[in-house]
Amino acid sequence: MTRAGGPRIVVLAGGVGGSRFVLGVRAALRARGIDDTAARLTVVVNTGDDLWLSGVRLQPDHDSLLYALAGVGDTERGWGRAGESERVSAELQAWGSGWPWFTLGDLDLGTHLARTGWLREGATPTEVAARLGGRWSLGARLIPMTDAEVDTRVAVAADAPDGESGSERVVHFQEWWTRHRAALRPLRFDNPGIAEAVPAPGVIDAIADADVVLLAPSNPVVSIGPILAVPGIRDAVRASAAPVVGVSPIIGGRVVRGMADVCLTAIGVDTDAAAVAAHYGARRDPSGLLDAWLLAEEDAGAAARVADAGIRPVVAPLWMTDAARSARLAEDALRAAGLT
Amino acid sequence: MTRAGGPRIVVLAGGVGGSRFVLGVRAALRARGIDDTAARLTVVVNTGDDLWLSGVRLQPDHDSLLYALAGVGDTERGWGRAGESERVSAELQAWGSGWPWFTLGDLDLGTHLARTGWLREGATPTEVAARLGGRWSLGARLIPMTDAEVDTRVAVAADAPDGESGSERVVHFQEWWTRHRAALRPLRFDNPGIAEAVPAPGVIDAIADADVVLLAPSNPVVSIGPILAVPGIRDAVRASAAPVVGVSPIIGGRVVRGMADVCLTAIGVDTDAAAVAAHYGARRDPSGLLDAWLLAEEDAGAAARVADAGIRPVVAPLWMTDAARSARLAEDALRAAGLT
Repeated sequence: MTRAGGPRIVVLAGGVGGSRFVLGVRAALRARGIDDTAARLTVVVNTGDDLWLSGVRLQPDHDSLLYALAGVGDTERGWGRAGESERVSAELQAWGSGWPWFTLGDLDLGTHLARTGWLREGATPTEVAARLGGRWSLGARLIPMTDAEVDTRVAVAADAPDGESGSERVVHFQEWWTRHRAALRPLRFDNPGIAEAVPAPGVIDAIADADVVLLAPSNPVVSIGPILAVPGIRDAVRASAAPVVGVSPIIGGRVVRGMADVCLTAIGVDTDAAAVAAHYGARRDPSGLLDAWLLAEEDAGAAARVADAGIRPVVAPLWMTDAARSARLAEDALRAAGLT
Repeated sequence: MTRAGGPRIVVLAGGVGGSRFVLGVRAALRARGIDDTAARLTVVVNTGDDLWLSGVRLQPDHDSLLYALAGVGDTERGWGRAGESERVSAELQAWGSGWPWFTLGDLDLGTHLARTGWLREGATPTEVAARLGGRWSLGARLIPMTDAEVDTRVAVAADAPDGESGSERVVHFQEWWTRHRAALRPLRFDNPGIAEAVPAPGVIDAIADADVVLLAPSNPVVSIGPILAVPGIRDAVRASAAPVVGVSPIIGGRVVRGMADVCLTAIGVDTDAAAVAAHYGARRDPSGLLDAWLLAEEDAGAAARVADAGIRPVVAPLWMTDAARSARLAEDALRAAGLT
């Protein structure tokens, strides 16, 4: 598996964990002597956590990846811009407008407004992502999973702490995630309209042309899940000649960040490295995806169950606590895909 | 002419000059012992200079009035918020988005985003103005002239400095005014859609119920002009039992601020206090408005021509260089309307 200019990698990714992993993949490619990583590395980005806020379009996962790749991200928080301020947000709160629990940085808002202006002029999200990506040298191409708006909605039980009546109610993903910190028991995650959505231009071609397809250690339910729910993407991954390698978002039986365990529970999947692998499925199975699955040394005991599910387990250090460890993990994933 | 609670005043106004004059009227009412000036003072605000910028709705004249009445305006510049910063605007410029020549302050942007969010939720501009006005104690009610979007367009000659071909081209008012500083020769000002627009709720009632109608010393062409072009407003002013008093925006044969002379020239009106009065017209004439016209001491020589046009000239100090002078001018206007 060699190709002039280096291998073509496609990563399916969400925001924070996805960003660290994609930085690692870029570093792994550079370590292999590949300079033009942008021509080699395509990230299919979750748009399920996108939202309209006071008339402005936000794409948090995309922007996390954008800022991380551009080197302008706040590495401490893991999201948003470095050196951020929140003057506009404070005004919005004074006006009683918007979602006061949603942090909106001034620099970040510049991105949102540029995007919104272009969208309102008729540009597609894919075109907008290309324009945004053109400001810096990212070393990767970011493509939204779809140009359709399929913002994730969460159906929550009506025995929720804030005492709404009725059997269930539906909130925007960001309201559930950011405002309620996933404390409202989720019954279901939906992406209205996704059954009619089509993959964004370039997504299917990138997957078909890939030498390796990687599933980042992002939230399997609300980050990777929406990507795979866009009709055509799962089939394209399955139809690809490339090995498909996933990285467990579970380390030592716990989610690394966020509240992915609550999401997994809601869809009936245990918070367990082997269970998540089985959720994605073995490629030999009718709708499964994975050839190999990287799981943490802490979860080495689950490797046998991964193998039993028909997926090749690869035990590796999964903590992406710094750039070197992220690059090492990415290299392990590339090797698991057969790159040498 | 006395009414319990004090006289009801309606002012037709644009932004900067309008703000100073309205502050003066509020002060004049307070000086008459009227505490609840908000119930007495209604400002019908020009919306012709409104614009969409990167998907966000800006209403510069309204906001100038809002900030001035709230006491949060930048009194030095005469527009925008005090203590303003421009972090978001700098980002928009870095993105190559928006109109780089249009200054967009961060605090100001909070207003625009609150407005845009409410508009996109379905609120009317009138409802938005009421919500915005509710944040502070303004001592006045601001009503947009119409809820329709009738942003002013300027047809400019194609022999414009930037070398566009063809006989003319049309630009948004703000592009002409702010970007080109009115340097492109204007052929015509249009407010597309205004012939089908209706006055915003409350406008006609306020005029019909007024004891005095005042025309602020705002730009007669692009500030007062659009207000009077909304079908029904000119007729309502003419039909009102109230005296109608205008204040000249010309002092000593020159415009006080802005580039109103260029606007006047474009519509064939001399930059002259009497010519502007004649442009508004005498109330005795078929479509005229004015009972009285305040003109500057420097223009006292034009008083006879104002009188010849059928309008009662009142020579007064017109410079609104501080709050006391603005209040004095407003008091002179109220007296010219017969209030004692």
